[in-house]
Amino acid sequence: MYTLVVIRHGESEWNQKNLFCGWTDVDLVENGFAEARKAGRLLREGGYSFDICYTSVLKRAIHTAYTVLDEMDLTWIPVIKNYHLNERHYGALQGLNKSETTAKYGAEQVQLWRRSYDVQPPSLTPDDPRNPVFLAPYQAEVAAGMKLPLTECLKDTVARVAPYFDSVIKPQIQSGKRVLIAAHGNSIRALIKHLEGVSNETIAGMNVPTAVPRVYHLNEDFTVHDVSYLGDQAEIRAKMEAVKQQSAVKK
Amino acid sequence: MYTLVVIRHGESEWNQKNLFCGWTDVDLVENGFAEARKAGRLLREGGYSFDICYTSVLKRAIHTAYTVLDEMDLTWIPVIKNYHLNERHYGALQGLNKSETTAKYGAEQVQLWRRSYDVQPPSLTPDDPRNPVFLAPYQAEVAAGMKLPLTECLKDTVARVAPYFDSVIKPQIQSGKRVLIAAHGNSIRALIKHLEGVSNETIAGMNVPTAVPRVYHLNEDFTVHDVSYLGDQAEIRAKMEAVKQQSAVKK
Repeated sequence: MYTLVVIRHGESEWNQKNLFCGWTDVDLVENGFAEARKAGRLLREGGYSFDICYTSVLKRAIHTAYTVLDEMDLTWIPVIKNYHLNERHYGALQGLNKSETTAKYGAEQVQLWRRSYDVQPPSLTPDDPRNPVFLAPYQAEVAAGMKLPLTECLKDTVARVAPYFDSVIKPQIQSGKRVLIAAHGNSIRALIKHLEGVSNETIAGMNVPTAVPRVYHLNEDFTVHDVSYLGDQAEIRAKMEAVKQQSAVKK
Repeated sequence: MYTLVVIRHGESEWNQKNLFCGWTDVDLVENGFAEARKAGRLLREGGYSFDICYTSVLKRAIHTAYTVLDEMDLTWIPVIKNYHLNERHYGALQGLNKSETTAKYGAEQVQLWRRSYDVQPPSLTPDDPRNPVFLAPYQAEVAAGMKLPLTECLKDTVARVAPYFDSVIKPQIQSGKRVLIAAHGNSIRALIKHLEGVSNETIAGMNVPTAVPRVYHLNEDFTVHDVSYLGDQAEIRAKMEAVKQQSAVKK
């Protein structure tokens, strides 16, 4: 049996401002670092350890990874950063306020963009300075002729995350490495769908709490033996509810 | 022509306590983080950028690397951690106070251990819990049957650092990658000797200031075109003098 731990980054500057973030590279706020330290302590006290960590190229996930590992006295393990674990690209919604977007487009449309499986938000235009082809972290992919997104629905994110997991992370787990993945709400949803075979409808309604370790025990054939969040379960439910409320129109 | 930047970690808990540190994994103090942030700002303002960073498996160097890269908005670049860039192993002196060691063994003996090229400090015994074979970060090397040190003179450190530079880092530089190396007083001395061909006598007397970027411009054949420390030169000289004074007997 294999153990795999997945963690969503702690609270970020744009979580706090209630803005659609996507590939915008904002940092954690102090509470986000505190959440990550707490997660690290929980893991350490639970007797967990890791041999390698995978994360995105976005600093809110990288800093979550670093902080968790520091708390576990695992600063020295390899941390692999790859854009395949990035948050869902939120297209032209990036930088817009979730409540204002709801007021402007209506709750139903915003709910579709946020929680449908295959409806893409409006796309960035190719000349938009936020097009990843203009951004430093993606120049190796540009040079390699890889196609980078201007917007993504969750289905697109699954199509990005799942092959990376299968081709890069899974072989590490199979070789006996204990893996930590520090990622984002939607790249983790993509992983959950991929690992647990959750339906398109169900996955869209799942809310991943910030900085709570999600612990998988996987059978040899990579079916899920069991999965649970580590920590105080009432607190975790409250965190999931907070994520769910983010697009509600602010009174 | 290639550019290579090398930086010694900022002030650590044991620099502050004036203890022989070696492979002991102590963290930076707040001033050490501040020094690293300053170095990152200097590099950013100087127009430097990096594609990849190499560091040791010791957290004072790793945190220096992370902090410099954060300041440069390069959090996302790969950071490779390898024990070949570790500080010199200080054997049985690790954990002893530099002034007290001087009072006990005499300034001449301590100066030999600190500044000779080929005199090893007293060795750890194999059953010492600080023997690297018992420590988590070195288990891959243990499994691979590699020999790990119980003490090192600078010559031993050169014999560890130089082949790693030649086989791993040099090809990256030759392929056009801009490299940052965040390491330690003696692993950087080893690099300086290797790159600049400094004599055994001279290298032993060189003091590397904490958290000051040392900028190399290298010719195509890897001879040094020029090398200098980035920043206020009077301040850098003061830092080098502070390092030199560390083993003086405290009055």
